[in-house]
Amino acid sequence: MTREFRIGMVGYKFMGKAHSHAFRDLPFFFDSEAVPVLTAIAGRDESAVREAARRFGFASYETDWRRLVERDDIDVVDIVTPNNMHAEIAVAAAKAGKHVICEKPLAMSVEQAEQMLEAVQSSGVRALICHNYRFAPAVQYAKRLIADGRLGRIYHVRAQYLQDWVMDPHFPLVWRMQKSVTGSGALGDIGAHIVDLARFLVGEITDLTATLETFIGERPLAEPMGNQTKGLVDVDDAVAWLAHFEQGALGVFEATRFAGGNRNGNRFEINGEKGSIRWDLENMNLLQVYLAEDEPGLQGFRTINCTEPHHPFADRYWPPGHIIGYEHTFLNLFAAFFQSLVDETDCRPDFRDGLQNQRVLEAIEKSAEQRRWMDVSREGTGNPATGGEC
Amino acid sequence: MTREFRIGMVGYKFMGKAHSHAFRDLPFFFDSEAVPVLTAIAGRDESAVREAARRFGFASYETDWRRLVERDDIDVVDIVTPNNMHAEIAVAAAKAGKHVICEKPLAMSVEQAEQMLEAVQSSGVRALICHNYRFAPAVQYAKRLIADGRLGRIYHVRAQYLQDWVMDPHFPLVWRMQKSVTGSGALGDIGAHIVDLARFLVGEITDLTATLETFIGERPLAEPMGNQTKGLVDVDDAVAWLAHFEQGALGVFEATRFAGGNRNGNRFEINGEKGSIRWDLENMNLLQVYLAEDEPGLQGFRTINCTEPHHPFADRYWPPGHIIGYEHTFLNLFAAFFQSLVDETDCRPDFRDGLQNQRVLEAIEKSAEQRRWMDVSREGTGNPATGGEC
Amino acid sequence: MTREFRIGMVGYKFMGKAHSHAFRDLPFFFDSEAVPVLTAIAGRDESAVREAARRFGFASYETDWRRLVERDDIDVVDIVTPNNMHAEIAVAAAKAGKHVICEKPLAMSVEQAEQMLEAVQSSGVRALICHNYRFAPAVQYAKRLIADGRLGRIYHVRAQYLQDWVMDPHFPLVWRMQKSVTGSGALGDIGAHIVDLARFLVGEITDLTATLETFIGERPLAEPMGNQTKGLVDVDDAVAWLAHFEQGALGVFEATRFAGGNRNGNRFEINGEKGSIRWDLENMNLLQVYLAEDEPGLQGFRTINCTEPHHPFADRYWPPGHIIGYEHTFLNLFAAFFQSLVDETDCRPDFRDGLQNQRVLEAIEKSAEQRRWMDVSREGTGNPATGGEC
Amino acid sequence: MTREFRIGMVGYKFMGKAHSHAFRDLPFFFDSEAVPVLTAIAGRDESAVREAARRFGFASYETDWRRLVERDDIDVVDIVTPNNMHAEIAVAAAKAGKHVICEKPLAMSVEQAEQMLEAVQSSGVRALICHNYRFAPAVQYAKRLIADGRLGRIYHVRAQYLQDWVMDPHFPLVWRMQKSVTGSGALGDIGAHIVDLARFLVGEITDLTATLETFIGERPLAEPMGNQTKGLVDVDDAVAWLAHFEQGALGVFEATRFAGGNRNGNRFEINGEKGSIRWDLENMNLLQVYLAEDEPGLQGFRTINCTEPHHPFADRYWPPGHIIGYEHTFLNLFAAFFQSLVDETDCRPDFRDGLQNQRVLEAIEKSAEQRRWMDVSREGTGNPATGGEC
Repeated sequence: MTREFRIGMVGYKFMGKAHSHAFRDLPFFFDSEAVPVLTAIAGRDESAVREAARRFGFASYETDWRRLVERDDIDVVDIVTPNNMHAEIAVAAAKAGKHVICEKPLAMSVEQAEQMLEAVQSSGVRALICHNYRFAPAVQYAKRLIADGRLGRIYHVRAQYLQDWVMDPHFPLVWRMQKSVTGSGALGDIGAHIVDLARFLVGEITDLTATLETFIGERPLAEPMGNQTKGLVDVDDAVAWLAHFEQGALGVFEATRFAGGNRNGNRFEINGEKGSIRWDLENMNLLQVYLAEDEPGLQGFRTINCTEPHHPFADRYWPPGHIIGYEHTFLNLFAAFFQSLVDETDCRPDFRDGLQNQRVLEAIEKSAEQRRWMDVSREGTGNPATGGEC
Repeated sequence: MTREFRIGMVGYKFMGKAHSHAFRDLPFFFDSEAVPVLTAIAGRDESAVREAARRFGFASYETDWRRLVERDDIDVVDIVTPNNMHAEIAVAAAKAGKHVICEKPLAMSVEQAEQMLEAVQSSGVRALICHNYRFAPAVQYAKRLIADGRLGRIYHVRAQYLQDWVMDPHFPLVWRMQKSVTGSGALGDIGAHIVDLARFLVGEITDLTATLETFIGERPLAEPMGNQTKGLVDVDDAVAWLAHFEQGALGVFEATRFAGGNRNGNRFEINGEKGSIRWDLENMNLLQVYLAEDEPGLQGFRTINCTEPHHPFADRYWPPGHIIGYEHTFLNLFAAFFQSLVDETDCRPDFRDGLQNQRVLEAIEKSAEQRRWMDVSREGTGNPATGGEC
Repeated sequence: MTREFRIGMVGYKFMGKAHSHAFRDLPFFFDSEAVPVLTAIAGRDESAVREAARRFGFASYETDWRRLVERDDIDVVDIVTPNNMHAEIAVAAAKAGKHVICEKPLAMSVEQAEQMLEAVQSSGVRALICHNYRFAPAVQYAKRLIADGRLGRIYHVRAQYLQDWVMDPHFPLVWRMQKSVTGSGALGDIGAHIVDLARFLVGEITDLTATLETFIGERPLAEPMGNQTKGLVDVDDAVAWLAHFEQGALGVFEATRFAGGNRNGNRFEINGEKGSIRWDLENMNLLQVYLAEDEPGLQGFRTINCTEPHHPFADRYWPPGHIIGYEHTFLNLFAAFFQSLVDETDCRPDFRDGLQNQRVLEAIEKSAEQRRWMDVSREGTGNPATGGEC
Repeated sequence: MTREFRIGMVGYKFMGKAHSHAFRDLPFFFDSEAVPVLTAIAGRDESAVREAARRFGFASYETDWRRLVERDDIDVVDIVTPNNMHAEIAVAAAKAGKHVICEKPLAMSVEQAEQMLEAVQSSGVRALICHNYRFAPAVQYAKRLIADGRLGRIYHVRAQYLQDWVMDPHFPLVWRMQKSVTGSGALGDIGAHIVDLARFLVGEITDLTATLETFIGERPLAEPMGNQTKGLVDVDDAVAWLAHFEQGALGVFEATRFAGGNRNGNRFEINGEKGSIRWDLENMNLLQVYLAEDEPGLQGFRTINCTEPHHPFADRYWPPGHIIGYEHTFLNLFAAFFQSLVDETDCRPDFRDGLQNQRVLEAIEKSAEQRRWMDVSREGTGNPATGGEC
């Protein structure tokens, strides 16, 4: 017996493509009860949204997201718009009794994020935030090793998200560089991912000190407005912060769009009492593991291709050594989410995680502004580190 | 306007899954005229084939492949059976006027392969052999570099396909170890892949000397037959050969199932007058390139993540640094094949490639048996190296 | 014609061995005028220092460093004692008119470092601080690339010095964990090295925010004192800091003795407008270089083995691909120093560098204590970044 | 108490430098009874040999090697000449009662090698062949793992020695390309090294099939002779062979000077029943080890930096993670040799190894010429695999 979940998607760019693909591909690999159905997609530009519906395989489209949210034939609203639209849509969807999937970062502010969490909690719907990298098999396996105590007490978290796509000063002022649309720059776009990975793997951050940098302050407008051909970059190009974790670890974090040669370098190394792990998104199937218990002389980082029956999700895909890619992180994430809808269980990362992530982002911005350490509030979000896996 | 190609698949194991997935996923990424439709699947065991039809998404099933081949609503027959069935099915499909897709190695012998080529040529159907690794973007890019003369004259081809899945002596006598079903062991299973990659990238092999090894000669039967609990392994566990290429290069090849720690190590290094390239399937998005023209002091292998707009197929998928996986090699291969059906053009690798590959495999077996160098015939197969890309 | 420089060494442990070896080996590889002569070695324990003299090849020994400093047959005093002895010996040596070589960190405090610089400046002797990693050929080559503008404006400095030798809680309370002897822990021991590399390669730090951690607060005494078997660790096990550079770059730094599996992981990555470089001491011959000017499609980090004629110091040693090791950093450093004595020119890193380094260390300690950003004074030290190579 | 061994060296190029350095540096690191003394060096060109004596530190020189061999004050004759001189000098030295050190390959032919072995055996002197790579700590450790059965039965030996220094067609016709002086090309120069490593680690080769290639047949003369500006390359640029080992393994070997980007790529991978190892001279401190006994999910190659107390020779040098280089292989080799002189024990690799290596080289040449498998004789050389470590 299958159970269909009718998806209404708002937005249709990069994340729209990634989500749509995952919804479509999911039943092939996950032979589960839950089956997502691509019911409607919304966007303001009719010809563009019509074309997106065709390309992605949605049965219908809307040019007003409000209509989509209200449709009776929608069970789940999936928000893949720019960040400044997340809150309004999510709140409306929750009020309309729809489950919500939302891209990260959750919101433009902690206040918005709190409203969103409040909305989904009072409506009793489930709400997923798309921190898909949690669902790379190597990351899930890392989590299992840590949860099983294989690394012992954690001393260090060292995480970087390094990109280079905007280094050319002629690269135009896209929406991801405009504060009013995106909230922040590298911080919310990629920094949010390493915040989530650290929270998932090690736990909550208690306090931090940060700095934000904007290396190129002015860029060509995508479309010149009268005489004006350049516009102000009012978000960060790069951010770095030091943090303490509740359980005692020291965190060193950096996210930047100015690390030439690093196309998508989402990396971490975690050092514990009994071992260490290293991961890099660009070689996402591999996990490097060091175990202090190994025999003297034979100690060293092992390079593990997490495509074996012993690794999370591997049985869904291909035999050992036949790697999977970026898109599979969404497949795994959504498989877990829809299963939670069927089972009526919690699925993390949810809006509590989104809110807590937002608090870290906001503390980073405040710390950078005030040039001092900031505490991170934990009010009402529980501890994802103990319930982090779907 | 779209054009549908109705697929009839024979077989439903690992390759059945890989092909089915690619057919289904193809229209999402390749917005082309050609759309494969999963029409029927055949297998002898009714409950198993019914379940396969459900899992893979075929609209119907047959328990006799002959019925499938004759169905009017089938345009393309896709053969994913054990090797000893390839010839009969392919010939019947060709005679029935169906296009053919066939897994590698093409046949059990050169004689069979010749019959298959003859059948598809006289019927005028198109016939694809599934050397999918040609279609890894990094391999396509390597081909482009070589074709553009960036490596100059090629001196060396060094290729290995290293696996380790049967090293445990308790691993049972599966069909891939029985000569009557599979023809050869590591040779046809994985050696055929590196033969194809070498042919694709560098050209034809003229002569070779080889050795075959069977390290574990007897294994437990999967299902004991009376008192008999063990059976004879009558295929190779490993094979190695030296070869000369028509254009002057020296080849050193090795394929084995006994290289512990190498789960799926399909690797090559090619050294030319002006540069070198290295590739490894386990990190299939990466290509290592050395260019002798680089400035002194700054010479070294570059590690290139072939996920950029400048790389083949990359525009179909995700932004730079967001990697793809094993399954995408089939997507790319089939996209090219269906496009060739629409365009009525050649699509390589075809059965000429399959036959030429088979000749290399057979020369290897004869050389190993006779302990001498063997020439490889080229009668009637043309030069894939000059027409190797779809 | 050769000119001998008679060395008087104070101390004889790990650094004593490294320096002695380099002095002895230097004339073989550097066919220069300057020849160090191992004249005397000093230490309090007569049998130990006598044995050290024999092992290292010193012609004589002293049990009081003051006698060594005053000997007429000593030209250069080399200080390889624990940190708390550096200042007194260096000042005495300078006053006695000897050139001084001193291990890092220069002193226990900025105040001491200033006195040391004042002493050598007023005596007119030359004074080297042993930041030997500047003299790895790959690091020298990195400096040349940066100085030549090959990386353009520098955006990011990301440096870590990761070790793991004290992670076992049973590891005893050695002198490197006692503040009175060593001044600081990971900070002065290994953090000082990455401060120096960053200053050498990119320039001066203007301000920073830092945190210090002590993970294991109590350890077994090496020699129990009465009933007391444990003692307090009063230095840092780990340190991290964020920093701004005078020329605009953002620095992220971390030094720790608790990064399991990292035996000697002194690493940096520097990202500039036009390119990036990466280095790791554990594979110290290799430099990874990314150049944004590379042809699209062929962009990626190059792995360069800095053993070619085009690389600094390579002509002194072996042909390309024949690597050198840790000890050669001292050979290169001392070759430059003695040449500067012959030529009567400046040799960096000198005590100005040592003082400036100490200021960074002290700012880190104060920042960690006061939990705020600290400015780093630059009074009277010039700009090593513009004169950093010997 | 020390015992001096007075060295007389014949030749003074690259190997002269490497040996001289090792003799000088040896007492510092190896606090042993045996102390080499650089007594005399011989060469035909007086000004060159005088300068070599000065640079390397020999006390005297000779312009006729025969005089050196006869001098009473010489205990050990070290032969670092081109290959065509090895036999005559070694035989004369042995007859004069001197111990002999000889560079590889031992001789120009098996016949010469047999004469050399005969000469040293009848004179009762000890005779070392300089297969220094056996003495890289990682290789010694690999040997220990294999000898201890950690890899179980060996299935595969895969070895390459890849260089690229002569790829430019304008590179002149140096002695290493002239058969009359060198015997063979890549085969004897670098192929001999991988023969030795395979014999050391796995044992004797019983039969093989090979091919030799000369890619550039004519080159500029270093010094034009009359009108003649080019000369014939009459040795191999590259060689490859397949081999069987006495204990059952399959070997695949390749040595070439035409593998662009590989400056000094001496590499092997060995796959056994219970594990695998990989090594690469360009990162010679690292050993990669895979153990099949590792826990499922945590299986992968470990990257081990062989600089720990548990690794051979590591205690002589620096702390963990502080790497050593090319020159240390000679230090370790000679330390073992001189100790064997003191102890009056066998030291391998000796002239039996040199002869057996020569037999493999000759079988390769014959196999390539006759295009058939050749057996390798074992007459009178014992089994180095069981006595391979000093």
